[in-house]
Amino acid sequence: MNRNIEIFDSTLRDGAQGQGISFSLEDKLKIVRALDDIGIDYIEAGNPGSNPKDMEFFKLVKDIKLNNSKLVAFGSTRKSDIKVEDDINIKSLIEAGTDVVSIFGKSSAFQVTDILKTSLSENLKMIEETIKYLKENDKEVIFDAEHFFDGYKENSEYAMSTLKVAKEAGARTLVLCDTNGGTLPNEIKEITSEVVKRFGNIIGIHCHNDIGMAVANSILSVESGISHIQGTFIGVGERCGNTNLSTVIPTIVLKMNIDIKAKEHLQDLTAKARYISEISNIQLEDSAPYIGKAAFAHKGGMHIDAICKTPQSYEHIKPEMVGNKRRFLLSEVSGKSTVLQEIHKIFPNVKKDGEEVKKVTKRLKDLEYEGYQFEGAEGTVELLIRKTIGKYKPFFKLNHFKTMGENPWSNGEFSSTALINVTVDGKTEMTAAEGDGPVNALDKALRKALEVFYPELKEVKLVDYKVRVLDSESTTGAKVRVLIESTDGNESWSTVGVSKDVIQASWIALVDSIEYKLIKDIERKAKAYF
Amino acid sequence: MNRNIEIFDSTLRDGAQGQGISFSLEDKLKIVRALDDIGIDYIEAGNPGSNPKDMEFFKLVKDIKLNNSKLVAFGSTRKSDIKVEDDINIKSLIEAGTDVVSIFGKSSAFQVTDILKTSLSENLKMIEETIKYLKENDKEVIFDAEHFFDGYKENSEYAMSTLKVAKEAGARTLVLCDTNGGTLPNEIKEITSEVVKRFGNIIGIHCHNDIGMAVANSILSVESGISHIQGTFIGVGERCGNTNLSTVIPTIVLKMNIDIKAKEHLQDLTAKARYISEISNIQLEDSAPYIGKAAFAHKGGMHIDAICKTPQSYEHIKPEMVGNKRRFLLSEVSGKSTVLQEIHKIFPNVKKDGEEVKKVTKRLKDLEYEGYQFEGAEGTVELLIRKTIGKYKPFFKLNHFKTMGENPWSNGEFSSTALINVTVDGKTEMTAAEGDGPVNALDKALRKALEVFYPELKEVKLVDYKVRVLDSESTTGAKVRVLIESTDGNESWSTVGVSKDVIQASWIALVDSIEYKLIKDIERKAKAYF
Repeated sequence: MNRNIEIFDSTLRDGAQGQGISFSLEDKLKIVRALDDIGIDYIEAGNPGSNPKDMEFFKLVKDIKLNNSKLVAFGSTRKSDIKVEDDINIKSLIEAGTDVVSIFGKSSAFQVTDILKTSLSENLKMIEETIKYLKENDKEVIFDAEHFFDGYKENSEYAMSTLKVAKEAGARTLVLCDTNGGTLPNEIKEITSEVVKRFGNIIGIHCHNDIGMAVANSILSVESGISHIQGTFIGVGERCGNTNLSTVIPTIVLKMNIDIKAKEHLQDLTAKARYISEISNIQLEDSAPYIGKAAFAHKGGMHIDAICKTPQSYEHIKPEMVGNKRRFLLSEVSGKSTVLQEIHKIFPNVKKDGEEVKKVTKRLKDLEYEGYQFEGAEGTVELLIRKTIGKYKPFFKLNHFKTMGENPWSNGEFSSTALINVTVDGKTEMTAAEGDGPVNALDKALRKALEVFYPELKEVKLVDYKVRVLDSESTTGAKVRVLIESTDGNESWSTVGVSKDVIQASWIALVDSIEYKLIKDIERKAKAYF
Repeated sequence: MNRNIEIFDSTLRDGAQGQGISFSLEDKLKIVRALDDIGIDYIEAGNPGSNPKDMEFFKLVKDIKLNNSKLVAFGSTRKSDIKVEDDINIKSLIEAGTDVVSIFGKSSAFQVTDILKTSLSENLKMIEETIKYLKENDKEVIFDAEHFFDGYKENSEYAMSTLKVAKEAGARTLVLCDTNGGTLPNEIKEITSEVVKRFGNIIGIHCHNDIGMAVANSILSVESGISHIQGTFIGVGERCGNTNLSTVIPTIVLKMNIDIKAKEHLQDLTAKARYISEISNIQLEDSAPYIGKAAFAHKGGMHIDAICKTPQSYEHIKPEMVGNKRRFLLSEVSGKSTVLQEIHKIFPNVKKDGEEVKKVTKRLKDLEYEGYQFEGAEGTVELLIRKTIGKYKPFFKLNHFKTMGENPWSNGEFSSTALINVTVDGKTEMTAAEGDGPVNALDKALRKALEVFYPELKEVKLVDYKVRVLDSESTTGAKVRVLIESTDGNESWSTVGVSKDVIQASWIALVDSIEYKLIKDIERKAKAYF
């Protein structure tokens, strides 16, 4: 099958209506660049009429050169009973200055009479006159037929007449919206087929995920002949979200063998999707299809053994095709082969049946029982293996630390400070630091003290810090798990600590981070000499 | 349509292979009870052969009386080239003592020769002899045809022969597994139709979500005539997870009008699904279909206005049908009507155009800009409204608090302590407390000091405590948002605090929690008198 499908992203418009989503201007510009990089055809970037921040964005975005994408401004058909040229929202749409405009109008007779409170014929005029006016202003027009599927089931003739009017007025694409997200796949397939039969290859689909069908309904519409798919990245959007484009894109390319512009950039999909979720401040589900951290992660011992023989035994595609990677999870259900793989990265000669494997496995399981999770903490795993079966001596001795939080502090605000006393090679260093919170203060004080002995620690920067309350029902007395990611510019590593006390948990992860760096430096130097 | 479909839950078996999942015995018993309550037909509860903890569970579970569900033990067909009665895993399956057993065997010729490393005919014998032996031991047998769809596409004749052998050996149900989760909906529909045509009304489906299709593929199979659906709660499972039963169940009942046992318990679905995700220590996505916190949450101003006119304008079902509820989100895109609704809960006479609405909206937006989020923090919203437009006077004055973390403490471990000094009605109280972490210590000290003046605070308990790092790239100096849920036994309320410092953020939320309680008590007393 070789047919062109257009991908239309609405992360910045429909996505912004999702719970917890709030984009700054800078966020929006970053996301536009990422979507362009990945080969998205259309980027719907805001509603200039309803939101002054969006208008400002459209002014700024003009300076960005896009290689793949066309920008789209979104708005409604004109208000009832006024002239289209008097509608201030339509004016804003034109002022936004994009070549493409998407316009939504009602396709459900019920919505027209009961929500818009206008007549069926006036609604048709609103669609017609708005599109004609935008065409006169040289816009490419995409018509979003809101509530199309519900409308079709109530009154198919009226729903179809809204499309007919939009097409005749000059809309290039007619998009069928499952606005409430409750339509079943068989209904979607049947109705989209009918519409494509009547209007030809100009039909698009816009689904919501209220019954978990947004992706499936979009893919089934492709089989019915639609040529334009709307969605958002990671599936963000009002209520249960929109069609997840990070799932739709690889499925179309890899499973249906259809050419789309994003095909060339498929290997960037995982990185870009994670970047967009980071900017959106959305926690990407580990289990997200194709791009999640667990999408190619194997835990059951039997699965891992089979994967080692033939990856396709439990993987539907090669993870690299979408820029993701395979992972074996360390856990109570994972077998020796997983632990052995980790050990072999450091000690390649350890045997599968050796005592070392048992010792490391036991240590890992004991710590897991305490609340540790090693799935994202390679640094701590490496240190644990070194401490359990290799030669290891500590790089410093903690004599004492103390953190203090005080409210009010001398300046009337809240303040956190830390003091620390460590010994390295018989020499003692005592120092103190202020910080944003007790952990930040302690981090600063520890580095300050150790840099006296290990100047290479100046290269180390913390790049991520996460806190997870493990058993939130025990409230402020619950255990917490702290995950820290560090970098020295060359390499990044993650370490983990668990304690009832967030300061103590952070301390454990901080110490591991520093020891990891110091061991790696010795290893690098040794390799240069031997 | 009126036809019976069996719901088969594998949260405790296939679900346990998901990243981050680890069930204790007590967790498993709690989940069994919840699944029974909700009307699940089959509960697959573990693999007694591979995991000694599972065997212990099967012993304990015998004492639980189930009203709706049958328990199932899971295992593999016998190993190649041994007698079935000599296979220790099969022995364990029988010892588990369930009436029903599910057995997986390979249906893909490639998997038999390349992964199992045995012959195609031996694999058929393994299926046949295992099922016969289990039938002789009075078990109801469910046969899971592993890799069925991939196998069917490679060698349909062999895939079908595995089903034929299983049926003839006495399996009651033949379950088609999309083990790698990569099969498209149209393929699933076509292949399940073929199989149902040949074997009749004894076919089940088991999907994985690697291309986001698990729910859709299960629903499409129902249209092909299958009568048994396997999945897990919240969709947990290896890689991208399994079919999410919390989506499938309401779709079958409400959208397809098919009778299942779970229909009678549909109004408990949200509560039970959230309970199971809590026990599983899985963060339930707010956007989860039907049961998520945002599934019926409305944010766009236009949507909220329409919902106030007619809920069905943007809701595909009534939220109460699945035990969920409608919410209006306070946000920068939410209109005045949302803010007004919140104000009216306390001050019913405030007008939509009044100065009060503007003041509260501005205060909310300013705080949102600082990182606050009010979507789950009704207590803080109520206090904010009271402070902005009502009469408000503080219940105490903080003179000073200090938290201290010390390592090592006198006993050689880490310790956190807090001291506090407050004034109420001119009287000053100074006290101190130890705790697990600085926040826990501060919480204890504050209550201890205030209970002297407000003994009703003794009723208040914190039931949840969440920390979110807002901008994790700023690492230990990042802003954090703390969300606290409190209860006095009658009512629960949530409060929120944001600061660069976790102690300060917690302090803000703690103070709001206490003030909320004290205001509510005055209100209750006033109502009793006036």
